[in-house]
Amino acid sequence: MPNPLANVTVLDLTHVLAGPFATMTLADLGARVIKVERPRSGDDTRAFPPFKDGKSAYFSALNHSKKSIALDLKAEDDRAVFHRLLARADVIVENFRPGVMERLGYGWRDLHAAYPRLIYGAVSGFGHTGPDARRPAYDMVAQARGGVMSITGEAGGDPVRVGASIGDIVAGMYLTQGVLAALFDRETTGKGRKIDVAMLDSQLAILEHAIAITTATGTPPGRTGARHPSITPFETFHASDGLFVIAAGNDQLFERLCVCLALPIAEDPRFATNPARCKNARLLKRLIEAVTLDNTAAFWIAKLGAAGIPTAPIQDVAQVLKDPQIEARRMVVDVLDRNGRHAFTAAGNPIKLSGMEDRTTRRPAPDLDGNRGEILHWLEDDTGG
Amino acid sequence: MPNPLANVTVLDLTHVLAGPFATMTLADLGARVIKVERPRSGDDTRAFPPFKDGKSAYFSALNHSKKSIALDLKAEDDRAVFHRLLARADVIVENFRPGVMERLGYGWRDLHAAYPRLIYGAVSGFGHTGPDARRPAYDMVAQARGGVMSITGEAGGDPVRVGASIGDIVAGMYLTQGVLAALFDRETTGKGRKIDVAMLDSQLAILEHAIAITTATGTPPGRTGARHPSITPFETFHASDGLFVIAAGNDQLFERLCVCLALPIAEDPRFATNPARCKNARLLKRLIEAVTLDNTAAFWIAKLGAAGIPTAPIQDVAQVLKDPQIEARRMVVDVLDRNGRHAFTAAGNPIKLSGMEDRTTRRPAPDLDGNRGEILHWLEDDTGG
Repeated sequence: MPNPLANVTVLDLTHVLAGPFATMTLADLGARVIKVERPRSGDDTRAFPPFKDGKSAYFSALNHSKKSIALDLKAEDDRAVFHRLLARADVIVENFRPGVMERLGYGWRDLHAAYPRLIYGAVSGFGHTGPDARRPAYDMVAQARGGVMSITGEAGGDPVRVGASIGDIVAGMYLTQGVLAALFDRETTGKGRKIDVAMLDSQLAILEHAIAITTATGTPPGRTGARHPSITPFETFHASDGLFVIAAGNDQLFERLCVCLALPIAEDPRFATNPARCKNARLLKRLIEAVTLDNTAAFWIAKLGAAGIPTAPIQDVAQVLKDPQIEARRMVVDVLDRNGRHAFTAAGNPIKLSGMEDRTTRRPAPDLDGNRGEILHWLEDDTGG
Repeated sequence: MPNPLANVTVLDLTHVLAGPFATMTLADLGARVIKVERPRSGDDTRAFPPFKDGKSAYFSALNHSKKSIALDLKAEDDRAVFHRLLARADVIVENFRPGVMERLGYGWRDLHAAYPRLIYGAVSGFGHTGPDARRPAYDMVAQARGGVMSITGEAGGDPVRVGASIGDIVAGMYLTQGVLAALFDRETTGKGRKIDVAMLDSQLAILEHAIAITTATGTPPGRTGARHPSITPFETFHASDGLFVIAAGNDQLFERLCVCLALPIAEDPRFATNPARCKNARLLKRLIEAVTLDNTAAFWIAKLGAAGIPTAPIQDVAQVLKDPQIEARRMVVDVLDRNGRHAFTAAGNPIKLSGMEDRTTRRPAPDLDGNRGEILHWLEDDTGG
């Protein structure tokens, strides 16, 4: 069975994170992704540390399996090549500041008129409309203005940044969804669509509970450290050797937890219901820790886990990469060098599809302009293979 | 132009967050989503506060625009109805613990044999394979075990939970991608696929930079509060009335920032390059704040913004909901009651598609079993409308 996007060609004009993250998923689903980079420097992240054998680990993790051609989109010869690529492509993706593509003559209207089947995906800080469309943004701008920092951090402390770049990544994921929906839609209509995704919009889209609280009560939620704002016990607890998580999301789980900890408090009116537990959360935490401090996190995770209570270690990234479940799920892959040897480590494809091989290796990230000959040859080939 | 998923019917057996978030996006793209709920109680989140007129704001924000039928999948009559639904559906989505659907006789193998075109989407804590497949998980279990908590929080402080439920939501987004890819693929193959997404896998998939650092240096990154781990200045700064963000991602932006702040340090070797700035970040922060403390955050955001420097307020959720850019992008929508009046507020659709109306209202979330008559009538109608 061919991969779902086996016959899809993506022209990838993106750089840094949000756009390359989106096209990486398309590549993982089988698309041919051709990175069109500016001559000489290429994607900024080629110069981002850390490096290995002169290559950026960061760039490699986001751009493996793609091909590269360097084109100066202001030079006549290169524009001619670009038009031949446009004529063969199914999708073009870009994350320039709004207006850049129009100035090059490659805005959505021009492209749609010339290539009506072409799908045009754009991701930007604030989107292509609205008063701030042309303002620049980075991940942290989206995290701060979009609200997620206001609800992340210690109670009474300052807002902190989410350690993963969700300002970029969530927007890239919505762009991928839009491209996939447009590909499906085109099977019926024969026409491409433009997809316009904003990092700011995408942050709002993931606030869920916080929006319900804010509009129902008039008061926006604050920060609660490692505690869930409305479920108790659902937070970190101290064991003898460090913190771990217990997430007892309902009364049955709380009763089971009390049995496991030999704490005779499941019937206590201060703890019998979730609202009561939320009100007495500080007291409950101390009662629980008076037990859990007596043994290691691993002991409690094994014991509570065996009783069906959701619990977890707080793993650092090195531990995550070696987690047996992550290994069994093939979620860590080797980006190969040109000799087929391991060069870099990257995240695998989290979309596990029946009938699609879940490989644990990836083709190398391309050198700048490294596939020019192959791409030009492919353009000559009329069979479209 | 019809909406991209106008002819797609989704049987939605999901509950709580990850699954309903995925089917909400499918509904926003035009799919007919039929929520199949257990009789009497239905989706747990129907009982989640806050409430308005007896209805959960949380449930409404995630389940607007869907229809509901209550079916006991262990009762013969209801199973017969369910089979008629399966015969008409394009997609079934579930987020039960692995094994539950098999015990009901509705596992992927059985369904694929009986309904070869049906697409089967599953999202679970740890996926359908691997040693921990059957363990229970909640959002915070995925955040903790998946590594994101280890890099979120103050430097030297404890790990904190990301305020948005990204353990659930990112997994739901990958499931949506898988369903959309399978819909496109089916146009060619005529066959459905199974999509198996795990919350744990999905957390690893968004760690990007942290994986590159860990594998290149052998040391996993820690917490850095509101600072970017490898770009400076890229963090929060104090103005006279509170914190705001400056994200000067390269040397040109840093030079412009120095001009705006009248700080003659752009050529200073301690600050001339990003590595030097990272090394002297604490000193640089004090030099910048010695200027920014002199005026308000709004003043600096306007001044730096006009100079093209990425900057932002740290908005609470109430401020985000009233942000003019968010309003211009139609990112806050009204969930209507049955009389067409505003009942709840929800996030809009961040996937802005040409040719698709971007409505600012949504149909009500369904009462439990509230569309039984309509759904049974639709099943009678052989035209498939």
